[in-house]
Amino acid sequence: MKEKPSPTERRALVRGEPVVRGVLAAALEVLAEVGYEALRIEDVAARARVNKTTVYRRWPTKQDLVRAAVRSITVDRAITPNTGSLRGDLLLIARQIAAQASSPEVQGLRRLLFGEDRDAETVAIAQSLRESMEALPRPVIEAAEARGELAPGIDANLIFRSLAATIHHRLGMERRPIDEGFLAQLVELLLTGALAPDKRT
Amino acid sequence: MKEKPSPTERRALVRGEPVVRGVLAAALEVLAEVGYEALRIEDVAARARVNKTTVYRRWPTKQDLVRAAVRSITVDRAITPNTGSLRGDLLLIARQIAAQASSPEVQGLRRLLFGEDRDAETVAIAQSLRESMEALPRPVIEAAEARGELAPGIDANLIFRSLAATIHHRLGMERRPIDEGFLAQLVELLLTGALAPDKRT
Repeated sequence: MKEKPSPTERRALVRGEPVVRGVLAAALEVLAEVGYEALRIEDVAARARVNKTTVYRRWPTKQDLVRAAVRSITVDRAITPNTGSLRGDLLLIARQIAAQASSPEVQGLRRLLFGEDRDAETVAIAQSLRESMEALPRPVIEAAEARGELAPGIDANLIFRSLAATIHHRLGMERRPIDEGFLAQLVELLLTGALAPDKRT
Repeated sequence: MKEKPSPTERRALVRGEPVVRGVLAAALEVLAEVGYEALRIEDVAARARVNKTTVYRRWPTKQDLVRAAVRSITVDRAITPNTGSLRGDLLLIARQIAAQASSPEVQGLRRLLFGEDRDAETVAIAQSLRESMEALPRPVIEAAEARGELAPGIDANLIFRSLAATIHHRLGMERRPIDEGFLAQLVELLLTGALAPDKRT
């Protein structure tokens, strides 16, 4: 366990936060405007109205900065639910995915990180983001296992991937809106399956 | 019922087919090279080594031609399975989706039809393709209903959308390969759900 920060340290952290938020928001803006390759830390610093050494101190490389910026509106915002049932947890996660996937900010990132023309550093950032996102449901899976909720032999990760994929597909490919009814139906399908009870073998 | 074609007509149809295939293949090539907006029927005709009137006679507009070309490697190639069980049918469909989604030809089309910068005609072609693709599982759903295989209240279309979305997501976003084991697990999840039998209410 890390010790509690002293009152002085705590004040410094709190004072530091708006700077962090400002720099990461500026990085996302510049990223959206010029793309990864053309992004310069100097321009991000100028946009955030801080000295570039302030940026370099926390994020020594462009890759560090962009990774932090990308995480700040995705994985860092994710809340791991703990409702006491897999159904409740899945519904909250489904709403969270739908809200994120509908945000123009995140849609822009998706194109940048998972689009066609990606350099090696962008690929690395995308992969680290994907790994972090995929690790998010772990506590939910463990809780469901502890409650004995999962069918034997099930690949629990596949539930979450299928959930995310179907929501993204509906918004991005089918271009249909997402509502509570849709999310509830999808969660129900993934939990109980399409087969009639007497047809399960 | 349409009457059988006379031997002469049948010969004409058979003779006609390579021309159709050649023109549609040429259209796909030109489309991949220059995009929808810059595609000219004259260039497609030249590429296919036919007179442009041959193209205009069958496909009066660029939109007709591109729609036919797009369908020729997607919906026209789809086979509706009839294995006698929803599980068997879903597995065959899953394999078909995986094979199509892995083909570079179809991936190029996806970007063109569902990418960002789409004009109204491309959007219309994408929508008509989507509707045709979504209509494909209807016989499979009806057969499953006739066998009493579907759970009451299930949105059967959602099974197929979730199937397609998860396969596309795995290839396009997760960049992971697809194998038989993955497809079988996915079909099983959609058929029987993630919950342990004693946890279904």
